[in-house]
Amino acid sequence: MNNQEIDRIVTMALAEDIGNGDITGEACVPPKTTIKGRFIAKETGVICGLFVVERVFNALDTNITFTPRVTEGQEINGGTVIADIKGPAQSILAGERVALNLLQRMSGIATKTAAAVAAIANTKTKITDTRKTTPLLRILEKYAVRCGGGQNHRFGLFDGILIKDNHIAAAGGIASAVAAARERIPHTLKIEVETTTPKEIDEAIQAAADIIMLDNMSIEEMTQAVKQIAGRALTEASGNMGDQDLATVAAAGVDLISIGALTHSAHALDISLKLKGV
Amino acid sequence: MNNQEIDRIVTMALAEDIGNGDITGEACVPPKTTIKGRFIAKETGVICGLFVVERVFNALDTNITFTPRVTEGQEINGGTVIADIKGPAQSILAGERVALNLLQRMSGIATKTAAAVAAIANTKTKITDTRKTTPLLRILEKYAVRCGGGQNHRFGLFDGILIKDNHIAAAGGIASAVAAARERIPHTLKIEVETTTPKEIDEAIQAAADIIMLDNMSIEEMTQAVKQIAGRALTEASGNMGDQDLATVAAAGVDLISIGALTHSAHALDISLKLKGV
Amino acid sequence: MNNQEIDRIVTMALAEDIGNGDITGEACVPPKTTIKGRFIAKETGVICGLFVVERVFNALDTNITFTPRVTEGQEINGGTVIADIKGPAQSILAGERVALNLLQRMSGIATKTAAAVAAIANTKTKITDTRKTTPLLRILEKYAVRCGGGQNHRFGLFDGILIKDNHIAAAGGIASAVAAARERIPHTLKIEVETTTPKEIDEAIQAAADIIMLDNMSIEEMTQAVKQIAGRALTEASGNMGDQDLATVAAAGVDLISIGALTHSAHALDISLKLKGV
Amino acid sequence: MNNQEIDRIVTMALAEDIGNGDITGEACVPPKTTIKGRFIAKETGVICGLFVVERVFNALDTNITFTPRVTEGQEINGGTVIADIKGPAQSILAGERVALNLLQRMSGIATKTAAAVAAIANTKTKITDTRKTTPLLRILEKYAVRCGGGQNHRFGLFDGILIKDNHIAAAGGIASAVAAARERIPHTLKIEVETTTPKEIDEAIQAAADIIMLDNMSIEEMTQAVKQIAGRALTEASGNMGDQDLATVAAAGVDLISIGALTHSAHALDISLKLKGV
Amino acid sequence: MNNQEIDRIVTMALAEDIGNGDITGEACVPPKTTIKGRFIAKETGVICGLFVVERVFNALDTNITFTPRVTEGQEINGGTVIADIKGPAQSILAGERVALNLLQRMSGIATKTAAAVAAIANTKTKITDTRKTTPLLRILEKYAVRCGGGQNHRFGLFDGILIKDNHIAAAGGIASAVAAARERIPHTLKIEVETTTPKEIDEAIQAAADIIMLDNMSIEEMTQAVKQIAGRALTEASGNMGDQDLATVAAAGVDLISIGALTHSAHALDISLKLKGV
Amino acid sequence: MNNQEIDRIVTMALAEDIGNGDITGEACVPPKTTIKGRFIAKETGVICGLFVVERVFNALDTNITFTPRVTEGQEINGGTVIADIKGPAQSILAGERVALNLLQRMSGIATKTAAAVAAIANTKTKITDTRKTTPLLRILEKYAVRCGGGQNHRFGLFDGILIKDNHIAAAGGIASAVAAARERIPHTLKIEVETTTPKEIDEAIQAAADIIMLDNMSIEEMTQAVKQIAGRALTEASGNMGDQDLATVAAAGVDLISIGALTHSAHALDISLKLKGV
Repeated sequence: MNNQEIDRIVTMALAEDIGNGDITGEACVPPKTTIKGRFIAKETGVICGLFVVERVFNALDTNITFTPRVTEGQEINGGTVIADIKGPAQSILAGERVALNLLQRMSGIATKTAAAVAAIANTKTKITDTRKTTPLLRILEKYAVRCGGGQNHRFGLFDGILIKDNHIAAAGGIASAVAAARERIPHTLKIEVETTTPKEIDEAIQAAADIIMLDNMSIEEMTQAVKQIAGRALTEASGNMGDQDLATVAAAGVDLISIGALTHSAHALDISLKLKGV
Repeated sequence: MNNQEIDRIVTMALAEDIGNGDITGEACVPPKTTIKGRFIAKETGVICGLFVVERVFNALDTNITFTPRVTEGQEINGGTVIADIKGPAQSILAGERVALNLLQRMSGIATKTAAAVAAIANTKTKITDTRKTTPLLRILEKYAVRCGGGQNHRFGLFDGILIKDNHIAAAGGIASAVAAARERIPHTLKIEVETTTPKEIDEAIQAAADIIMLDNMSIEEMTQAVKQIAGRALTEASGNMGDQDLATVAAAGVDLISIGALTHSAHALDISLKLKGV
Repeated sequence: MNNQEIDRIVTMALAEDIGNGDITGEACVPPKTTIKGRFIAKETGVICGLFVVERVFNALDTNITFTPRVTEGQEINGGTVIADIKGPAQSILAGERVALNLLQRMSGIATKTAAAVAAIANTKTKITDTRKTTPLLRILEKYAVRCGGGQNHRFGLFDGILIKDNHIAAAGGIASAVAAARERIPHTLKIEVETTTPKEIDEAIQAAADIIMLDNMSIEEMTQAVKQIAGRALTEASGNMGDQDLATVAAAGVDLISIGALTHSAHALDISLKLKGV
Repeated sequence: MNNQEIDRIVTMALAEDIGNGDITGEACVPPKTTIKGRFIAKETGVICGLFVVERVFNALDTNITFTPRVTEGQEINGGTVIADIKGPAQSILAGERVALNLLQRMSGIATKTAAAVAAIANTKTKITDTRKTTPLLRILEKYAVRCGGGQNHRFGLFDGILIKDNHIAAAGGIASAVAAARERIPHTLKIEVETTTPKEIDEAIQAAADIIMLDNMSIEEMTQAVKQIAGRALTEASGNMGDQDLATVAAAGVDLISIGALTHSAHALDISLKLKGV
Repeated sequence: MNNQEIDRIVTMALAEDIGNGDITGEACVPPKTTIKGRFIAKETGVICGLFVVERVFNALDTNITFTPRVTEGQEINGGTVIADIKGPAQSILAGERVALNLLQRMSGIATKTAAAVAAIANTKTKITDTRKTTPLLRILEKYAVRCGGGQNHRFGLFDGILIKDNHIAAAGGIASAVAAARERIPHTLKIEVETTTPKEIDEAIQAAADIIMLDNMSIEEMTQAVKQIAGRALTEASGNMGDQDLATVAAAGVDLISIGALTHSAHALDISLKLKGV
Repeated sequence: MNNQEIDRIVTMALAEDIGNGDITGEACVPPKTTIKGRFIAKETGVICGLFVVERVFNALDTNITFTPRVTEGQEINGGTVIADIKGPAQSILAGERVALNLLQRMSGIATKTAAAVAAIANTKTKITDTRKTTPLLRILEKYAVRCGGGQNHRFGLFDGILIKDNHIAAAGGIASAVAAARERIPHTLKIEVETTTPKEIDEAIQAAADIIMLDNMSIEEMTQAVKQIAGRALTEASGNMGDQDLATVAAAGVDLISIGALTHSAHALDISLKLKGV
């Protein structure tokens, strides 16, 4: 990832929380007081975001030492010590909440992704994310999906082509929409078309779409669609996949299952920072 | 709220998603094509963030008309039309995802808050949030809590005093920590002290703390603490309150229940935008 | 204070003064030339802002060494050496003016505050500032007030409640204004009401205002008001207090005297930087 | 002036004061309430910054109408109505303090400058400012000096050459310093040299300096210096000129008198905004 | 394109040129003076950037009217009137240089691209750009290439995969490099591999690369490479293509020719703005 | 130059190219792989921008070592090793393109400038640039002109006075335009007037203009103009000077020749970075 971009997020997150200053810490804690502590998982999950935590604390104070005890993407049980920290107490207390907010959120997404990946283990199908991410944190959330074993879909509107019903209507059909896209976009990008019926699938194949999205289809419809496409394009199952039995979807033979809930509805992994004076 | 701040978030969110341009929309949709559509709730909940949606679309194109059909904070059922939109198709398609991501998240938080508020209806207790918000979106999430009937806790480290165990240890006790804070902070702020035992509560009362947090106490301990405090300070129940039976907590007599899960683990309310050509 | 915020101010101040480059220094001073110098007070006052000076120079060049010879908030006489500096001449010359502009302004405010505090020594009354600060420098000026022995009032519109005549008129009276505020704001904030008559004071007391501002009252009126309030709220004297005899105001028994002139009309403390080649 | 730059300052000043929102106004004032008011001078002075006030309010709300009743740079007496305002009460209350802080500061500087200009009326000498301005507000303060009848010195280190003692020492003398500058800088800039003795003045003349600063000289020394220079360069009197009898300095025959106190120690002109409901 | 992004560039470009103000225009031109003028091409070329010019002037002053007389991408001869402008003279003079600098640069790139496209007319080969663009202006320059009839290559390092010799060496061969990329990147992106020999081409085909770059090959080598690949991947000729006879390269049968000189060495199209008072 | 400003450009340029990350490098190159390489000139020219290259790489990774082998402004032949680099491969690959884009552009401008300077060697005439620079890169391009032996004209509209035909028309003549400027601008700036006829030149002399621009004159007209001015002002030849025989122009006796093509139409100097594993 682009560390400049991570630091930009970290800087803004600290500004949001600290504002003009941590008035409690500044009032109650002598400047030279040092402290040490442990980040401890309070439930089972996949840890993600340790390097972000380090950047949070080092943005505040280069005298803070942050030492991970697990590796990025590692699955741990409740009670596991994730990392140690020590340094100036005022700075650690000022950064604690931002660090935990990011670590818990990223670990929550990685954990949810890992569960989806596990549900379809031993199939050729991959789990992928969507653009239903938290505004301003997409780079971190997409990384968390990778950390949990998922694969990323396009990052935004600028680096992938996904032709949906409204594009098709505006362009006058799948054939003309795909042709318009192929005329205009970089040759480095594949073209994906959203379909809901066998007829649309057929048009997408004729237009030589690289990827065909099967949107809100039943398992039977998806199974049939995969046969119809017969390897002439990648297939992606989509539409409230967070509520589906993923093994059944994978069994339909799709290449990818995209799940918005990975990012829009993951719960924060419970992690705490236990501090004590040095 | 400060609209300048909302617009700053909106601008960055659009930049994140659109980047150098919506290549699909630009390729497939003629510039003059117009479109209209409806935002429809797909489940029961409390709507929050309509004005943000409007600012998203107007930031992209002042020719877009966005017309809410419900009021901010209104509880609606699945199937309700929330708002109408019409205008240039390229612009509406470019803003759709950012608008929905914000609206769904804010409505999800408002819905979760409203449920918590309903659970303790007819008591004097109030539901309040924490600093466990999504980094960079706190202003929107704190607003969503108010929208759902909750009350905000301090916004950040700069506008409220919350003296926790580490502050107390560093300052040499509750008495000295409170005294240090009172010496330094604006007279416009109350002082809150986190406590876990009757002894600490007693020290906080002696120090004339304005608010006493009862952290991770059992219902029995909270009930006893409220009696011990006897109105000499506001009382706030805290500690995984998202997993508690809130009516029981309220029955303990606390003034406030603070719940991190309102913001860190709400799920996005399912809302869709159905578009069709004009 | 939040050092990120200080550095943001420092960066912008240097950009304002240096722009595309210090053309005199770059033309006349060889890059490797080093220089040393002394910051010397040319009049009696309270020194404030030494750490800001250090950040100014280090933002330009980490090879500059800045060594304070007095402590922050120390009262010194004309002629006192405040700090030593040495390092690359081009960088020191480029930062000199910004450093002095900030140091002189902050020391001027600290000095003016210290004089006000001294005027009411041995009373229980405290000196506090207002929002009449220099736009964009509030964090530094509020700090300078603390450095001079004063106490800060709210930082801005977001972290304190001050209900004035127009709020009261719009809300339909003091009672309803206070009730509206209490309903909406975080429980961590006190509520202050501005009053000008005994009747308004009475209403504020009935509404359980935490702080009552006595605005533009005569000494007699203030004395009477303090008696009327009788400890049921903090009392704050306000209204051109920069022109008053502060000891007399304090003798009226108020808890706080807020003085806009501390920040809007302090004169810069005369401090010079005497440089010579190394 | 560059309005983009003014708006950048205005935006930051509003963010500083309003932060996440004006919690008093939002709680107490119904959103549709309108209000009107008058800006009134409470002492004699020169008004400066009316267009900045307008930009402050319009940045918050385009429904606010701000109508100046005097012209920029006009000298008015205490009691004069400077401007009318009307519009949404929440927005006017949110912008009031920032608007006044800027208007009072700029008018204070214009007033102080006008007094200096008046003191040397009917001479050929001009009053000019320095770089001793408030960091981040230089563009506004330099404008206020012009508004009061003064002339600006260079804006910063990038748009003017002022060769001081340290530059001279580093370059190895006035001759070589001026030569180095002339070699490197745009031909559109004049070269100014700071001098303190007749010998230095002679060297500056020999080097064909365009402007010669007479630094910290007595009236006699200045008078002599002007004769020595004899029109071969512009002459600028400098050095605590804020404490001098300006008419006497002008009588020495200098072309310019530069005064740091115009900007670093002006007091805010007393102006109030009287509001009442519409 | 993303207009927010264009406006960000425009804002910075105006700040760079105008800084604290256009001192000539402010001094010499009365504020109410209006002016009108014509943008006239002084040589043959393809016009590109008219909408950017409009945004430049409207950023300065919404009272300026800019009326294009040709269409974006139109080829015109020297002497053609490109657009009319009228409005406040101070604002038009302040924006003139930035507007022309952008228009001339973009038109220069569009013109150079159009010449390259014309050179291979009636072949299936397309002209594409590279990442050798002017830093900070890539979005405009890539658009200018499209405007001249070219096709864009990837925008940056984030939206396309191009595996070069160093990647191959680090990954341990073409097969493993492609596999690593396929494992990690979004399924929406094609994979391009740079090759210089038939052996590398063979490895790229075996790895199922989507695009094969033929780097610095002779015409004979390219002809042979195209035969070897035989439609199993897109082929891209690369390597100082700005100095080649493009028709000959196209005749080798490649799908794409990428030319860095389109953007790094185009000369500005000569366009002037003739103004006269209204 | 102001390094803060350089770093701001570098940061934005890296963000433009790297975006969310270098997906090729991250996929194919193990994080700990190191690499070394050489920057090699592929044609004769003047090297400019080495310190910018260093800042690009150090902004990405402080573990990169960049060692110049030539000095800034040195003329080198094709084949010369300009600099060595070594460090983490992922970081070097991520920064390569931005570094080269800046180095090649700056060196191209320095080379073009040096050629112009050489063409008029042994005359008193100087080569100067214009404001026809690449938007957002002016500080670097003006530096490159100096690096090639040229002299800078004013940086922007804010630091120099250039009175053109439209200013003259608006002000009512050269005399009144110059008088208006002199009244308003800092005394540190010279005043330049654009002229096209002997009559205008005469008026400019009468107005005591410091610099007279001879715009689009023939060699004969320029020669005559220089005689007419006779040292009473600096003379600057202007108007498509990039297409002129500069020695002939210099022979006309002008002090300065300003050439827009130095910056708007220089071609990038061909420089490559040859990398190999460590």
